[in-house]
Amino acid sequence: MENKDIENIDNDTMEKHEEKMEQESPKEIADLGEFGLIERLTKDFPLRNESTKKGVGDDAAVLSFGNKEALVTTDLLLEGIHFDLRYVPLKHLGYKAAVVNFSDVYAMNGTPKQITVSLGISSRFSLQHIEELYSGIRLACEIYGVDLVGGDTSASVTGLVISITCLGEAEKDEIVYRDGAKPTDLICVSGDLGAAYMGLQLLERENRVAAQSGNPDFQPDFSGKEYILERQLKPEARKDIVRELKEAGVKPTSMMDVSDGLSSELLHISKESHTGCRVYEEKIPIDYQTAVMAEELNMNLVTTAMNGGEDYELLFTVPLTDHDKVSKMKGVSVIGYVTKPELGCAMVTRDGAEIPIMAQGWNAFVNK
Amino acid sequence: MENKDIENIDNDTMEKHEEKMEQESPKEIADLGEFGLIERLTKDFPLRNESTKKGVGDDAAVLSFGNKEALVTTDLLLEGIHFDLRYVPLKHLGYKAAVVNFSDVYAMNGTPKQITVSLGISSRFSLQHIEELYSGIRLACEIYGVDLVGGDTSASVTGLVISITCLGEAEKDEIVYRDGAKPTDLICVSGDLGAAYMGLQLLERENRVAAQSGNPDFQPDFSGKEYILERQLKPEARKDIVRELKEAGVKPTSMMDVSDGLSSELLHISKESHTGCRVYEEKIPIDYQTAVMAEELNMNLVTTAMNGGEDYELLFTVPLTDHDKVSKMKGVSVIGYVTKPELGCAMVTRDGAEIPIMAQGWNAFVNK
Repeated sequence: MENKDIENIDNDTMEKHEEKMEQESPKEIADLGEFGLIERLTKDFPLRNESTKKGVGDDAAVLSFGNKEALVTTDLLLEGIHFDLRYVPLKHLGYKAAVVNFSDVYAMNGTPKQITVSLGISSRFSLQHIEELYSGIRLACEIYGVDLVGGDTSASVTGLVISITCLGEAEKDEIVYRDGAKPTDLICVSGDLGAAYMGLQLLERENRVAAQSGNPDFQPDFSGKEYILERQLKPEARKDIVRELKEAGVKPTSMMDVSDGLSSELLHISKESHTGCRVYEEKIPIDYQTAVMAEELNMNLVTTAMNGGEDYELLFTVPLTDHDKVSKMKGVSVIGYVTKPELGCAMVTRDGAEIPIMAQGWNAFVNK
Repeated sequence: MENKDIENIDNDTMEKHEEKMEQESPKEIADLGEFGLIERLTKDFPLRNESTKKGVGDDAAVLSFGNKEALVTTDLLLEGIHFDLRYVPLKHLGYKAAVVNFSDVYAMNGTPKQITVSLGISSRFSLQHIEELYSGIRLACEIYGVDLVGGDTSASVTGLVISITCLGEAEKDEIVYRDGAKPTDLICVSGDLGAAYMGLQLLERENRVAAQSGNPDFQPDFSGKEYILERQLKPEARKDIVRELKEAGVKPTSMMDVSDGLSSELLHISKESHTGCRVYEEKIPIDYQTAVMAEELNMNLVTTAMNGGEDYELLFTVPLTDHDKVSKMKGVSVIGYVTKPELGCAMVTRDGAEIPIMAQGWNAFVNK
């Protein structure tokens, strides 16, 4: 009996060791080859949309849009620039990489339908790692009803590279661009701002503390901060707001998603629409946890909300006549109004002063 | 007079030094920021297609296909894996990165119409470098009549990353997949094979010789080898073959482009079509320069043609009844025929022996 137990333990340990080796070794991916890897990674993505005539497995995907318009958006995510794998779980990374593309399609008042996913995989990743990343992409596809229709997979001699292209559709007269804002239009934003940025600050702080502690079992303290963490690690695209607007019979005059920060996006809409804007400091929606974290880190809360970025909320303008409709909408704040271009873009502070809005959004070429 | 001359020389030198600094410094890109860089890079791309309703500058591009089908394909190119900047000029790299995507759309019997280009740019690249890369992409767009409609630009902490997605269109009943080959169909290939691979071998050899010589002014010897070099550095997509087939009233039963090597592609078509194949060694089209280079490098010529890859020729099958039509076609070789699946895939050598075809195509996970 005793011997048998020992044998079992040994076997277990051997198996675990082998499993661990497999996890750590890139050999499995090399064994599969590119086509094997693609087959393995894409097999659990059923096609959901009638417009998808042919998905993965040929030179190109085939989409049929009939009388609808096709929308296309693409995002490139690079390790060390857009994400840090020390504190971003791969499943979350996959989910987010997909969702930020969906967000771009919703920001056109469209519906995301297909994505292509290209990966550059460095040798420190095992098949299990990549499958974890894909499980996040798969979850996002399930929740948002999107088809995976293609991609490219390659080794990378450096870090992980994720490039996603998303196609969507919309009725021709429903598409909302950035250039339609008119003076007197109301400026609205969904949800709240600055939380994702504060979530990142929290992750970076806990990572520093962990490194300094030298304790491999260090447990980061995230209690009471779940919301800002989730906003950073698992953002959602505002599908619900697009639907709410449609149901209320409101078609925004301009719209975009807040990825680089509210300041930067306000300037984009103003530039494209040849308008100016006024937004009220006191109207900018900020969550309690965001405020607490900014306080803890001694950071300016309004700057955080204006320039933090990665909120993936929708910023849009509506005619003044839609005031009552948008005011009643759950999860929508009216934060200001569109002006003539000569008035420029400014934030009106609580004491009535006007501060010019400047683009301090995230810049991948500076914030390295 | 003398003093003035010296002053001039000094000024020249200063200017040249500054120019050199600018070329080497990433500062310019950081100054422009992501949006400035995108604006700068995309301003010289006029929209050419009626189906492009909105190009760069919003959350997504808007395409209108009416009764046509949309085709989507994407490619990720990573420095150190797919290209080596020691011997690939940036303009050529841009051209090739675009053309290989167009080739995928032609391989569906479609016409490429739009591309998105995402770049990850490491700090050793100046704006001038990136503009050179883009000039190649622009040239490809001009020649093939394709619109640039979007993209993403980011810093990279590692090498250059290029991710291109191409959309194309085709009439629904014109699209050719990989799965339509039938026993007795003829197997055809355009152009010749193995040249791009030999061009790469030549570039690598001359690069090694240059490094060994230690002479910075070393001039590589490419005379008489221009064709294989061009096939490697500036491949073309076979738009002409797609047109020729249409004009001749031939619709292939299956088609794909030869990017990973003829062996690999024959196996793809056979697998998808549930067929086997026989191709004749003596029928495989090989250019004279390819043969000379293989001889020089003591490499097996047929292996080179079967497994070299990056040819971007079209491999397709047609019904036996189209024999006369394809036989007359310029730039098309009939190399074999489709069989029942149980006969497998084999090459028939000059002496009548059958060698099983195995996938030895380029594998990014092994050939590092």
